[in-house]
This record gives sequence, C-alpha cells and structure tokens, in this order.
Amino acid sequence: MFKLIKKEGSARRGEFKTVHGTIQTPVFMNVGTAAAIKGAISAPDLKKIGCQVELSNTYHLHLRPGDDVVYDMGGLHKFMNWDRPILTDSGGFQVFSLAKLRNIKEEGVYFSSHIDGRKIFMGPEESMRIQSNLASTIAMAFDECIENPCEKDYARDSSQRTARWLERCVAEMKRLNGLERTINKNQLLFGINQGGTYDDLRIDNMKRIADLNADGYAIGGLAVGESTEEMYRIIEVVEPYMPKDKPRYLMGVGTPVNILEAVDRGVDFFDCVMPSRNARHGTIFTSEGVLNILNAKYERDSRPLDEHCSCPTCQSFLRASIRHLFKAKEMLAMRLSVIHNLYFYNNLLAEIRASLDNGTFGEFKRANVEKLNRRL
Amino acid sequence: MFKLIKKEGSARRGEFKTVHGTIQTPVFMNVGTAAAIKGAISAPDLKKIGCQVELSNTYHLHLRPGDDVVYDMGGLHKFMNWDRPILTDSGGFQVFSLAKLRNIKEEGVYFSSHIDGRKIFMGPEESMRIQSNLASTIAMAFDECIENPCEKDYARDSSQRTARWLERCVAEMKRLNGLERTINKNQLLFGINQGGTYDDLRIDNMKRIADLNADGYAIGGLAVGESTEEMYRIIEVVEPYMPKDKPRYLMGVGTPVNILEAVDRGVDFFDCVMPSRNARHGTIFTSEGVLNILNAKYERDSRPLDEHCSCPTCQSFLRASIRHLFKAKEMLAMRLSVIHNLYFYNNLLAEIRASLDNGTFGEFKRANVEKLNRRL
Repeated sequence: MFKLIKKEGSARRGEFKTVHGTIQTPVFMNVGTAAAIKGAISAPDLKKIGCQVELSNTYHLHLRPGDDVVYDMGGLHKFMNWDRPILTDSGGFQVFSLAKLRNIKEEGVYFSSHIDGRKIFMGPEESMRIQSNLASTIAMAFDECIENPCEKDYARDSSQRTARWLERCVAEMKRLNGLERTINKNQLLFGINQGGTYDDLRIDNMKRIADLNADGYAIGGLAVGESTEEMYRIIEVVEPYMPKDKPRYLMGVGTPVNILEAVDRGVDFFDCVMPSRNARHGTIFTSEGVLNILNAKYERDSRPLDEHCSCPTCQSFLRASIRHLFKAKEMLAMRLSVIHNLYFYNNLLAEIRASLDNGTFGEFKRANVEKLNRRL
Repeated sequence: MFKLIKKEGSARRGEFKTVHGTIQTPVFMNVGTAAAIKGAISAPDLKKIGCQVELSNTYHLHLRPGDDVVYDMGGLHKFMNWDRPILTDSGGFQVFSLAKLRNIKEEGVYFSSHIDGRKIFMGPEESMRIQSNLASTIAMAFDECIENPCEKDYARDSSQRTARWLERCVAEMKRLNGLERTINKNQLLFGINQGGTYDDLRIDNMKRIADLNADGYAIGGLAVGESTEEMYRIIEVVEPYMPKDKPRYLMGVGTPVNILEAVDRGVDFFDCVMPSRNARHGTIFTSEGVLNILNAKYERDSRPLDEHCSCPTCQSFLRASIRHLFKAKEMLAMRLSVIHNLYFYNNLLAEIRASLDNGTFGEFKRANVEKLNRRL
C-alpha cells in the first residue's frame, strides 16, 4: 500500500493508498479532536486549505457523542462530511493526559471521564472496537504514552506492555474487519513505538512491533518533556529498525522546523495542534517567520497575514481587520487565523514534497530553517 | 433611485439602486455589528447565503477599531472584504441601549463607552462624520430610540428633537459628500421616524421628516417593549405618510411572521439579530417551524436541519452532528447554525419577492404564517 517514490538521504517521498484515497507523503494531518477543527472549521473547509488527512480522537468521540452514535450515523466520514482519509488516534494519549484516577493493568486502563467523572475501562480491544465504530481509515494502536523523563524500569515495563497490547490490537482489528456490521472492513492499523528517551528500549520495542506486521508505524512519546535534540536523536535511533515499506508517523510534532528535521530523518506522517492552537491566540506562521497579530504595529497594516500566501484568509483579509476581530473578541478572528495557519502547514508539506520530487529537499531545508524560526 | 415594480395591497416589490449594486426589495439585511457576523461568519461567506445588504454598527466601530482606522484602510467595504451594499446604523440605538452615564442635550449625547468607560460625545454631525469615514452605502440618521411604554410628553420632546437632528444630519451628509477626502461621495441617508406608541406623535414626526428629502425612511423605536399588535398598528398608522417613492425600513424586526406582516403593511427593508443570535443558542428556523437542536430527540437524527433547505449547512451536515458540536462546545456548531438561519431569512425574503412578482403574496402569507410560528 505504501509506495516509495523517491529518497534524498533518509528523507522519503511516498504514496499511501487507502480506501478513502491516496495520501501523498510527507503529509501533515489536520487535527479535528471532537469531529470539528477548533476555530469553527468544518471538514469541507479543509478541502480548500489542502488537507489530505483529518485526525480525530477516539477518547473524545467515545465520551461524546459516543462511538455508537457515530456508528449509527454511518461512521465518522458521514458524521463530519469528509470523504478523504481519517486517522483516529487510539485514546491512549488522552487517557494519560486528560482522564482522571487512572489505574493501569495488563488488561488495559481504568479511568474516570474528564467530562463527567464516569468510570470507564479501555484496553486494546475496546479501543479497536471504538475505532471500528468510528470507521476511520487508519486506526492507531492502544498504547501507554509516558512523560519524559521517566525511570528506566518503568519505561521498560510500559513499552513492553504497549508491545503486548499491539498484538491484541492486531488480532482484534482483524476480527472486526471480518464482521458483517463493520462499516470500513479495510480499516488499517498503525503500531506505536515507545520507550521514553532510552535508545535501547526504543530499539527493542521497534524490533518487536515491526514483526507484528501493522500497516504503518508511529513514534509516540516524543514532544512530551524531552529536549528537541533528544527528540531528533530518538528518531535517528529508531528509524533504521522501522520497516522501509511502511509509512512512519511522528505523533504530535511539531513546529515547521521540527517537521523539516524529521522529514530529513525519514518521517512520513505528522500531526500537531500547534498551528490551530497558536492561531486561536493570534500567533501566525508566515513564510518570513512567526508574528503576533495582536501587536499594535498591525493596527493599520493593510497587508495580508503573509504576502506570499494563497490561503482564503490572505486572499481576502487585511492584518488590520484580523487584529480588530481579535480585539473585538469576534470568533471570526480565530477562524480566519486557523485557516491561514493550517494552510501554511499543508502548503509547507506540499513544498517539501515538491522539493523531494526535484531532488532539492536539502537545499529547501537549508533555505528555510532560519526564516521559519524567526520572530517578526 | 427606488423603483416600485409591483404592488399587492400595501405590499411592495421594488428595486433600490446604489453605487454598490441594486437591492431587490423586500430585503433582509444581515447584521455584522463589529464588521463580522457573530458565529465566525465573514462577509464573503454572506455571498453564499443570499445576503444582499450587510449592516454594521457605527457605535461599535467608532469605539473599536476606530472609524479613523477603517477610513485609513479604505472604508468598511475593504475592511470587511464585501463589495455589495452596507448600511450603517447611526449609533443612536446603541448609545441608548449599551452606553453608560448618558446625558441627552439638544447638541447630542454625552456618554461613557461600555468597553472602557471613556467619555464620548455624539451628535448628528459626529454620527455622519463617523459613517462617512466608514463609507457605508446607506447611513442612518442619529436619533433617540425611547423604550415603550414612555410618557407622552417625553416621547413628544424626543421625537421632535430627533426630527431637528435629522435636519442637521442631512446638512452634514451633504457637506461630507462634497469633500475631496470622502471615500463614498454618494453616501445615502435614511431618516428615522420616532414617537413611541402614540399615533399622533408618529404621524406628526413622519410628516415633518418626509419634507427633509432623505433617501429613505425607517420606522424606529419598535420591538422595544410594545406588543406585536401595537407594532403592527404603528406601521399601519405611519405608512400612509411615508413617501411612496422611497424605501421604508422597519428597524430591528423581527420573527419570520413579523416580517410577513410588515411586508403586508408596506415595509421594504428589515434587519434583526434574531436569526444569528437564536442560532448561536441552538434555536433553528425551518420551513416546518422552529426547533431546538439541543433536544435529545435529535441525538441520532440523520436529517439536515431543514429537509427543504439548500443552505451550505443543510447540504452537508446532519442534525446529530450539529447537536454533538453544540454539546462539545465546538464553535463550529454556531457557525453552521448561523449560516442556516441567515440563509433561511434571506431565502424567506426571496420567496416573498417571488410571490409579489407573481401576484401571490397574499396566498404565500396565508400558507406560511401558521407553519412559521410552529414549535417543533
């Protein structure tokens, strides 16, 4: 399903075929946690800003509206009105970052809902059943995401348990895909590499899960406390053990420069709330660097957010207008800014793909790292 | 500029030519108080939902971002990215409903900003200068909007002062339209009829302001405390004294049925925050009546908000999804609902115009009043 089109160093230009269409990689997935992109963005809006894959959250949708509701409505594609690929994360990360009163056992995790305190159990099988109900294109394995730094003994136990959980996820997904009631009988499953910041644990875990023949592999547990240098090192350490013929996904990362560096180290899939979250607070990514639109110097600035941008916001709105809308607490400020920042990320990935096609990725990266880090 | 195309009883089908395009009447204007339609709707979005005229508020834009900022950016059309007609209200209503520490004098009103307490003076000339800076298509006269009920003596004094203020507005607008610096040198001015619920005061006032040769006339001071029957009576009382060759605008009204009844009594222009405000709270107008999308019975309802609606929301989203988005406090819920409700109003007016064209308005009204009042 994954076709490697071109390589430049470790950087890969690929294509990933799914029942909901072919994904051109490297790709940035746009996060729609609860079946909506925060900032009043709908799935159909995503088509206008170059999004290939939408990402929703198993944990959130299980709690509200309930995956049974989404199933009854015909799955997440119909529920959101989006016909392209959807990746659902497994709920693992949210169980560990949002839920309360967690109790981790071999069978799974007992926890309380962060919404109403309701007691819930989620293990590998439950996560697969929920994701099967949601009928996403790609399901993620149920894992434990530990924070960095973490004691080595705990990191070892946890990553080994996560590997055992993947075995159960693979078996359950196979069973679910065979059921008559299942909406997407071709649902794919990605495994997740864990092991904290310990190179040997990461490698052991990656070797073990590579044997389980998932449809793709993610590196999880990064951007959760460690330094950027450690993150890059872990990618470099794990990458040689990741199957060459399957997509690699770096979960929850990151800044534009993080993405350039990770592509350079062989990563194909990305997701991050940063572009939408920053936009909602007025922090705007541009081709010249990062700006804060609330700054007084933009009060009478008649330029678009980014003079080199073709997004719907930059085609129509002045910096002065967007600054005013933030000051007036108009929701529209957030929508226009999120549209721009997501377009910026999707477009950055399109430029990365074009440079890989032309064999000029190294040059593209060198020309942009300093600019993208700039604060305007 | 106003061309009467057809009449059916007192109901009028007309066309109003402006420098920003021709308005087909009767028309509903979509309210964008602070240069944005609440619910994350942009001016370009309004084109997709059949809006002919956008309405912004002088008071709000004077306080924030400042009409000087809007002027520097080239006027409200550029500031909002909207090339069709804009009507700006005069600030009168907001000074009386929002501002604090009001002191009304013959020269105008001294008050404190509701945002930061700053002391401000606004009289007829100030209102015209601000609206000239905003460069709207149609400016409204600066008036005092009294609440109903109101002592007759006060209502008389107030409506006479409002008439004197209109004289000053007419003179100042003429002066401003002649200035080199003015962005829209063809800015139009509508006068406003006041007089509370007193028929004789309303008629005296209307006769007096009709002589001042404004470009259109509004009935103000309704839907501010009086009964619906009183409102209809006032329209009937005033209408014979309104110039036949100029548009009539009923300010801040109202429900779909209010609009049908007012069209029947000879009104051409409407505006109201009801469709957008109700939408933001989940109250949805449909061709079968009004529904509250938060109701549990819509949890698994795979129909659109209105099965007979062609709006962007109804083309793409299920009741179950929109209900979920409200429950999950996703802004998108508001945007989708506001789009629907505004489309519903714009479309209702399009249907009213079509029925007037066909000489079937009476029939259309009879067929719809009961349905539109229904609670689902």
